[in-house]
Amino acid sequence: MSLTEEGKIRELIDTWLEASKAGDLETVRSLMTDDVVFLTRDGVMERDDFVASFQAMAGNVDLNGLPDIQEISVMGDVAVCWNKLRVEIKPHGGTRKVHAGDVLTVFRRGADGNWRLWRDANLLAAV
Amino acid sequence: MSLTEEGKIRELIDTWLEASKAGDLETVRSLMTDDVVFLTRDGVMERDDFVASFQAMAGNVDLNGLPDIQEISVMGDVAVCWNKLRVEIKPHGGTRKVHAGDVLTVFRRGADGNWRLWRDANLLAAV
Repeated sequence: MSLTEEGKIRELIDTWLEASKAGDLETVRSLMTDDVVFLTRDGVMERDDFVASFQAMAGNVDLNGLPDIQEISVMGDVAVCWNKLRVEIKPHGGTRKVHAGDVLTVFRRGADGNWRLWRDANLLAAV
Repeated sequence: MSLTEEGKIRELIDTWLEASKAGDLETVRSLMTDDVVFLTRDGVMERDDFVASFQAMAGNVDLNGLPDIQEISVMGDVAVCWNKLRVEIKPHGGTRKVHAGDVLTVFRRGADGNWRLWRDANLLAAV
């Protein structure tokens, strides 16, 4: 049975979080557009900034993202997701920190039919 | 000469900020969908929460919003705007405060052809 478009977005989010946990940069990269933009409390990150940040953490930090999806709306080749995300971050040999907050994400479906993350505004803060 | 769809979004943002400055709640209400959701550092606001917050400020605060639009993308009946917004807030008889930050907004075009604000994630903080 094939997934609905909403189901594909849910799967993308799960895959993203699992790949982040596993330090699998190639998978995460494949799930974002070339012109992706992340808006965060600490400023704006484009694709190269995100990759550098991911590489700095991979292997040094245990990362566990727990989504609580509030809604996914698919409108043609655009989808919008509101997620309440909780991220547990534990540097190796360090203390566990928890960040949580609302995230608004816009996904686009490419010519290849695959959805990718395109714009993301992330209100996560330490809790 | 008629405006492009992008031009209509720019006009909506200008009208929104002017109406906010003027304390004109009816105009602001007409520019948002019934199911609008605002994600902010202070939590989630739906339409009624926004109206209550607007009414609490109107007449008591001078509000001046200065947009610096980074991009507007129109995709069918959906439009996405990334804005760097600066808001100057001066309570009557009080001290001026400035909030600034990135805002990601999703607009939808209704059956009447009018664009309205639908989802908004606002990273503004005191500067």
